[in-house]
Amino acid sequence: MIDRSLLPPKGTKDLPPELAILFEEIVSKIEEKFKEYGFDPVITPIVEYWEILKGKYGEEAEKKEIWRFKIPQSKKWYALKYDQTVPLARFFARFQPKLPFKRYVIDRTYRYDEPQKGRYREFWQADADIVGSKYPEADAEIINLMIDIYDSLGFKDSYIRISDRRALENIVKEVDEKEKFLEIARIIDKWDKIGKEGVLSELKKITNKAEKIIEKLEENPEEYYPKEFLEIIDLVENKNRLSIDIKLARGFDYYTGMIYEVWMKDFNRAIGGGGRYDNLIKTFVGKEIPAVGGSIGINPLIDVGLEKGIFRINRKTYTKVAVVYIGNTFREAWNIANKLRKAGLYVYIDLMRRNFKKQMDYVVEKDVRYLIIVGEVDLKENKVTFQDRKTHEKIKIEIDNLEKIKEFID
Amino acid sequence: MIDRSLLPPKGTKDLPPELAILFEEIVSKIEEKFKEYGFDPVITPIVEYWEILKGKYGEEAEKKEIWRFKIPQSKKWYALKYDQTVPLARFFARFQPKLPFKRYVIDRTYRYDEPQKGRYREFWQADADIVGSKYPEADAEIINLMIDIYDSLGFKDSYIRISDRRALENIVKEVDEKEKFLEIARIIDKWDKIGKEGVLSELKKITNKAEKIIEKLEENPEEYYPKEFLEIIDLVENKNRLSIDIKLARGFDYYTGMIYEVWMKDFNRAIGGGGRYDNLIKTFVGKEIPAVGGSIGINPLIDVGLEKGIFRINRKTYTKVAVVYIGNTFREAWNIANKLRKAGLYVYIDLMRRNFKKQMDYVVEKDVRYLIIVGEVDLKENKVTFQDRKTHEKIKIEIDNLEKIKEFID
Repeated sequence: MIDRSLLPPKGTKDLPPELAILFEEIVSKIEEKFKEYGFDPVITPIVEYWEILKGKYGEEAEKKEIWRFKIPQSKKWYALKYDQTVPLARFFARFQPKLPFKRYVIDRTYRYDEPQKGRYREFWQADADIVGSKYPEADAEIINLMIDIYDSLGFKDSYIRISDRRALENIVKEVDEKEKFLEIARIIDKWDKIGKEGVLSELKKITNKAEKIIEKLEENPEEYYPKEFLEIIDLVENKNRLSIDIKLARGFDYYTGMIYEVWMKDFNRAIGGGGRYDNLIKTFVGKEIPAVGGSIGINPLIDVGLEKGIFRINRKTYTKVAVVYIGNTFREAWNIANKLRKAGLYVYIDLMRRNFKKQMDYVVEKDVRYLIIVGEVDLKENKVTFQDRKTHEKIKIEIDNLEKIKEFID
Repeated sequence: MIDRSLLPPKGTKDLPPELAILFEEIVSKIEEKFKEYGFDPVITPIVEYWEILKGKYGEEAEKKEIWRFKIPQSKKWYALKYDQTVPLARFFARFQPKLPFKRYVIDRTYRYDEPQKGRYREFWQADADIVGSKYPEADAEIINLMIDIYDSLGFKDSYIRISDRRALENIVKEVDEKEKFLEIARIIDKWDKIGKEGVLSELKKITNKAEKIIEKLEENPEEYYPKEFLEIIDLVENKNRLSIDIKLARGFDYYTGMIYEVWMKDFNRAIGGGGRYDNLIKTFVGKEIPAVGGSIGINPLIDVGLEKGIFRINRKTYTKVAVVYIGNTFREAWNIANKLRKAGLYVYIDLMRRNFKKQMDYVVEKDVRYLIIVGEVDLKENKVTFQDRKTHEKIKIEIDNLEKIKEFID
């Protein structure tokens, strides 16, 4: 029975060691790729002044999703990061670094959504952004980076739905409904949920060009993409992972050019997304600063990865070596454990004065692969026994040469 | 002039790349040591229900220091982590893992203190805790680990003020003031601030044994330490880093046995601390579960480390290689950059259509060490120029053998 009073807040998660180890492995692979593409880290607080976030995400998000609050000791309104991008914009305005400014961040984010599969109230995002370049090579670098990351994590079946706000703008302009662009886009974006008929009927409520719009969306959408978008596609290395889709019309409160989402078949939501946002930083700096970036949703990534067997929980511990002692040899075992640690090995030694059998129960439960067995007889010859629990190989080794076991350890 | 509206909340920090890189280096050294000592990671949310934190830290902390709040959408009271230990206790009670349970965590913590040197409202702690062992070897493992960490970070001058609640209890018992123990301890803990005379006068207000207590503290404090404490000391590898000090009397709302703090000379506050807390987990589990742990304050560590020249900000970027192009060779340079990335190198390429000189300005500013120069003449021979900006060595290298540069790269 679950004691509900011991759960973390609804929509947040505890990661026990086996999941935290998987999490760390994933994060370090993503970080490695960020570095390969020339991005550097920036850390900003989880807590921002509400003023900073206000007005950036649309009314709906502000009312329903943002974690904003006062604390009893203070008069200021605070908010928890809603994404990594607005804090980046504030940071950029504060420090005005040299352009292009390429930063990555892997950090928590907060949205007071109704929790559901793959969706949390506290979750992790891994973001890479390029500030300062208006050119398609910046957009393409983000897309190449993202494909490379999902590939390196084993998501070879993932695909990138990609489009460009300017294509949809061109269609809407052509039917002479420019001033209704945002409304129209919001309806088109629901295509996957409500289908063509649904979109048509909703469009009809706000324009008498609804049929025309649908026609253009379906017939020759490629005609409407600007040259810059085609240049992006041209610079993408792995074009067969792209699915150009003019019906992707999300986030136009924010995005000004290329937009994309990363999807896996049979998973209910995107596992990443991003795009170009050339107006956001202006709100902090006062002048136009182009920017493009992408975000990996680490929580849905882990959820779908485990579901599809791409990730496996296969380690309960980082520990590689257990020093176990028989008889009255704890003190020698203690010194040996500390010596091995100084040699850089990950070492466990019993701290509960357990007998050999119980020490071994623990080692087996945690599945620590290598053993150093410290016994009185061996000690008389200044030796211990080194054992590989996987291959069952055993050797005696002199305590003075203990570091040699590093050669045997996988 | 600082635009105050661009600052993060008072008591929080933005870390630009050069500081974030330093931060990551420090964190990864600490993590490595945690693993060497057989600890595994656990991740719990930043946000907890207020119920979980309530009553754990004393009235003063609750009223002044805890970040607690409601958000408009919800009726629940939340709080931001005040330390890593209470979330560990909740986690332990929820999952009841096998004993001993050794976990590490490196995460943010929140205290609404008045910000001052080395003290923040949002800050980072690196904690290691052992749950389940009541034996001195567990305490000693924490102390050995901590000394090892501070050493590996270059803090060879740090020292551990260490004591044991039971020693002070023995003194207070001997003068027959057992029921005033916590009050007396709180006064003694102020010794460094208010001096012997100050402590004496404050003690006199609550007991007529004040002089006797002072006498015992000063004359033969070692007599009062329990056998278990001496066993801890015996198991510490680097005893000359210990400073046993019975006047250390902090945190007895919480600590039940050994306590310690880590100090550096000429720095105004501890850069770490911890101790044994055998009663905390009971509040969640219902039965007694002994525990001991320690915490490294990463922010004061960085502050004092930079101040004393132990840490240096010497890298503005992780990037090792810049691919620079001359003339109409961007597309070839782009392919080369992506090829080098696939080989695991950290690579920059211009995204702003700059000329060679401006590309080089950026490379020099960021101090990227290695160059791949892509020019039209070289390309005709299917070659590029590889240059080490530090040694000024230059070689021509065939594009098909590009990966070879890995041998030259530091």
